[in-house]
Amino acid sequence: MDNFTWVTPTKYVFGKNSVKSLPQLVKQFGLNKPLVVYGGGSVVRSGLLQQVEELLAGCGVNEYMLLGGVKPNPLDDLVYEGIRLCRENGLDSVLAVGGGSVIDTAKAVAAGAIYSGDFWDFYCGKAPCETAMPIGVILTIPAAGSEGSGNSVITRREGMRKLGARSEFALRPKFAIMDPVLTFTLPPYQTAAGIVDMMCHIFERYFSPTLNTQVTDRVAEGVLMSIIEEAPKVIANPTDYQARANIMWAGTLAHNGVCGTGRVEDWSSHAMEHEISAVYGVTHGAGLAVIMPAWMVYMAHNDPRRGAQLAERVFGVEPQDTPTETALAGIGELRKFFHSIGMPLTFGELGIDEPDIDLLVRKLIENKGEKFGGYMVLTAKEAEEIYKLAL
Amino acid sequence: MDNFTWVTPTKYVFGKNSVKSLPQLVKQFGLNKPLVVYGGGSVVRSGLLQQVEELLAGCGVNEYMLLGGVKPNPLDDLVYEGIRLCRENGLDSVLAVGGGSVIDTAKAVAAGAIYSGDFWDFYCGKAPCETAMPIGVILTIPAAGSEGSGNSVITRREGMRKLGARSEFALRPKFAIMDPVLTFTLPPYQTAAGIVDMMCHIFERYFSPTLNTQVTDRVAEGVLMSIIEEAPKVIANPTDYQARANIMWAGTLAHNGVCGTGRVEDWSSHAMEHEISAVYGVTHGAGLAVIMPAWMVYMAHNDPRRGAQLAERVFGVEPQDTPTETALAGIGELRKFFHSIGMPLTFGELGIDEPDIDLLVRKLIENKGEKFGGYMVLTAKEAEEIYKLAL
Repeated sequence: MDNFTWVTPTKYVFGKNSVKSLPQLVKQFGLNKPLVVYGGGSVVRSGLLQQVEELLAGCGVNEYMLLGGVKPNPLDDLVYEGIRLCRENGLDSVLAVGGGSVIDTAKAVAAGAIYSGDFWDFYCGKAPCETAMPIGVILTIPAAGSEGSGNSVITRREGMRKLGARSEFALRPKFAIMDPVLTFTLPPYQTAAGIVDMMCHIFERYFSPTLNTQVTDRVAEGVLMSIIEEAPKVIANPTDYQARANIMWAGTLAHNGVCGTGRVEDWSSHAMEHEISAVYGVTHGAGLAVIMPAWMVYMAHNDPRRGAQLAERVFGVEPQDTPTETALAGIGELRKFFHSIGMPLTFGELGIDEPDIDLLVRKLIENKGEKFGGYMVLTAKEAEEIYKLAL
Repeated sequence: MDNFTWVTPTKYVFGKNSVKSLPQLVKQFGLNKPLVVYGGGSVVRSGLLQQVEELLAGCGVNEYMLLGGVKPNPLDDLVYEGIRLCRENGLDSVLAVGGGSVIDTAKAVAAGAIYSGDFWDFYCGKAPCETAMPIGVILTIPAAGSEGSGNSVITRREGMRKLGARSEFALRPKFAIMDPVLTFTLPPYQTAAGIVDMMCHIFERYFSPTLNTQVTDRVAEGVLMSIIEEAPKVIANPTDYQARANIMWAGTLAHNGVCGTGRVEDWSSHAMEHEISAVYGVTHGAGLAVIMPAWMVYMAHNDPRRGAQLAERVFGVEPQDTPTETALAGIGELRKFFHSIGMPLTFGELGIDEPDIDLLVRKLIENKGEKFGGYMVLTAKEAEEIYKLAL
């Protein structure tokens, strides 16, 4: 167990009708003139955006502005637009109504609007992100965990570079309203992709070279087991409130840091997937369903310890003759699970028949450097092999 | 899963030499003129108090004051003394250096010093605790979980009433410095009592009538399993850094709320133990080792669901013919575990040969009302039976 610093100040207001807490929360955290960021049609069609506007107006927050149109794999264009709106109109905060793409866009605006330079500095590693305007969230898609994390991922249109910024404190939302009912209308594919995403947030932390991390291991395994238990229920019955509630809360715990304290994390699979979704525009979670098991297979042959523990504890695999075989058996169970909820397992199933692996590797190295990864340090050579394992 | 609101703003700075972060933390959280609260000789003998004073002086915090002498089952006397010191000297914060008793005293002072009435109002339920001066913690005993909780337990000398206050936000420390090395010198009995205390903080949440709490169940089970795995190591080798680190972090997760979101909690066993330690002055964790399994036995015969799940998942008990038998087998394992780390299982082993059960029940009802408990509502009658199960 390594030394660590951890703080999760987000106030979670969870459950049926929790949206009604919005007036009290915007007052408490000083969202007096917020930029309300949202995505496409669903928050409009469902009436949620209208409800938010009525709640804001009802508590005297009338000087808000709207910024809609955030898309999956969100681009920097809309971030610049949000920053401009905040600066020109003296807005003091952001309120994200949506899923990870919306929240990540809102975070970039919140940090960028009060920064003298280009917000992209935080994403390309040129400057640390130390302050941001207050961020509030109304979550509609359990997946990215951005509602409780200090992370944000944005794609720069120029060169389609998809990179993440991180700030221990500044990028963590002040509050997150989480009503599982808002997730009832999510299509099965998006629900499943979100489930893969949250599981991979745990795997990225679970596969760690740090020893003696028993508490965090067990917490991570527990969240994984509960996701595996609840996922089939939400796929079979999208309006199963209790299953939706468990999946929603699991998504937050998967990425708020409780599964990662005191350990070196990995994040190679996320980095490798970011290139896939940046180049081919696929859903992040679906891309992870393809690349994460491929990465695990490579690890099973090189350092099978964590994969074997995962197999035994989470998937109930009996120990095989070697840790590698145990780990591989676990990956088999994981792939079966991903398939069972409708997720792809190969580039082909992802709709990319002939992926340009050279391009993916080249962009990966451009964005992450010659060496990356925490569990095992990878270079272009290993990355190429792992991409090929996903063919 | 019930609706919930949860916020844990405490900044945890965990690991070897983390005490050196004190100057930065007191600046960040505005502990400009703190009351430094501590216990008996150990923080003096170990040199920790001197180190704290040097660190404070080194960063220009010279107008602090010291309040030592906090004892286990801390009394209101010292709280009043602390409040007086804060008011008369214009102190603006508290810094607790110690374990749960020290932190709970510090919390009571932090809330009471800026309250116009009697601080006891927060404990006897007369007034809600809504604000407090900033609280910082340097933890030396992993047990009470007070470093991350919004709780404080104080005993009023008059009538020896031991009661708890709770505040979602105000009583949560701003920061908690947690160096496992500081726990190397804890005597085995105190180490073991701390381990029981943290396990019981989880049990009080785990035994819930709320259904469909899969995520939180699995997290709770995970923390329990890791404690059971690490406990024998710290008992056998008190300077096993990694095991101490895992136990220390488990103690925080056991009580910061992550094991309790979205569910009705119980807390009957804590209430029943508070009467034992208030009357007989025993160590809280040792009292819990006696009363918690007795309470579980009563539950096994009345509502065995949770006990059976605990038995199977945490203690690896094979399902027996009935849930009651499964639950009882789990309690058998729990008692074996408590014994293995040197904890008592009966009033006799606790050193109380003839407990005055009438008195305990009378005080319990006086403090908790005619009915109490979340998993199963208890009255004087059931409380008497449970106390007798611990004979």
